[in-house]
Amino acid sequence: MKLYSYFRSSASYRVRIALNLKNLPYDYAPIHMLRDGGEQLKPEYRKLNPDGVVPTLVDGDNVLQQSLAIIEYLEETHPEPPLLPKAPADRAYVRSVALQIACEIHPLDNLRVLKYLKHTVGTDDETKDAWYRHWVEAGFTTLEQHLAGDSRTGKLCFGDTPTLADACLVPQVFNAQRFKIDVTRFPTIQRIHDHASQLDAFARAAPGVQPDAE
Amino acid sequence: MKLYSYFRSSASYRVRIALNLKNLPYDYAPIHMLRDGGEQLKPEYRKLNPDGVVPTLVDGDNVLQQSLAIIEYLEETHPEPPLLPKAPADRAYVRSVALQIACEIHPLDNLRVLKYLKHTVGTDDETKDAWYRHWVEAGFTTLEQHLAGDSRTGKLCFGDTPTLADACLVPQVFNAQRFKIDVTRFPTIQRIHDHASQLDAFARAAPGVQPDAE
Repeated sequence: MKLYSYFRSSASYRVRIALNLKNLPYDYAPIHMLRDGGEQLKPEYRKLNPDGVVPTLVDGDNVLQQSLAIIEYLEETHPEPPLLPKAPADRAYVRSVALQIACEIHPLDNLRVLKYLKHTVGTDDETKDAWYRHWVEAGFTTLEQHLAGDSRTGKLCFGDTPTLADACLVPQVFNAQRFKIDVTRFPTIQRIHDHASQLDAFARAAPGVQPDAE
Repeated sequence: MKLYSYFRSSASYRVRIALNLKNLPYDYAPIHMLRDGGEQLKPEYRKLNPDGVVPTLVDGDNVLQQSLAIIEYLEETHPEPPLLPKAPADRAYVRSVALQIACEIHPLDNLRVLKYLKHTVGTDDETKDAWYRHWVEAGFTTLEQHLAGDSRTGKLCFGDTPTLADACLVPQVFNAQRFKIDVTRFPTIQRIHDHASQLDAFARAAPGVQPDAE
């Protein structure tokens, strides 16, 4: 398998975690999102990924987009170890945590959104940074309530075994920390992040140790 | 089952389509997103849905959030008729179309985002409307390329049988039309929308025929 990835992209980071958790080796194809106007927007790459976003996973003849769809594919094609629990209601719960991050937080703080705010809406850097912090903090506030209040929460989002939810949470915390958000205000999120980050599959997926890290 | 829904919410609309496609009857609990500061933000509702968003599906003891997680749950608990194809790569493709809408388009045009733009960033209505159109048009441009270029596209997103992808596409087109976006510029999207909208399950899920429609 070949993963088109940018070290700092949190959607790429999710898929790297999932590949590592499933012990699947892969080739790393770096796509530099800032260099030269963004390599993800070049026609060559857009043949693989018309949206011009990372990651893309190529598995034989299959070209796969969207990090959560890629992780569900890995779950179906390489079921062990599972990244989703067995019972449908628990699977829905884990997916809802992942989607809360992937749909309610991350899309608002994407590079292209921040660019549009700055260059088209014309906001200053202070307003742009406040925007970033607002959506992370709003999302983390409700995510913290979810996780702190649910009996299924353990050392990780669902018990003590890594799931799709942890694969989304850790990259989002990485992003928040980059933007100097005080994650200790969200103690359950912080605790899960700290535990997960020490696991080998997460540590090997971290942005700082990727081939294209700067 | 009981669905907490707002007639115009496109995430609610997705779940209504899925319930109808699976011939599952449900009670409709209206949550008015504009009345009284937003009923979705009231403490009573937040006990069910800490994020303060619709929809929430209650199935016996299970309280389920996030439209795509709810639809995957329905798929697992009521497999017939399926809303995902059989082969993992095809399932990933259908999910990626759904996620492109749910992660790349819809979150940017949410009510709470438009409110933040207007009241906190302080944009005028023209800039806010341009923002809305920009993300729909950018998303539809790449979605159109996807759908027009993939041999799996039929009368609907994946062949001629309704899937999760159609359950996301139709509500997004409804939103676009409300904001006077010319969807005919995206002929494959328009064609799929028009075909799907005539199917009974989609027609019965339409905002205009819900109990809380205005």
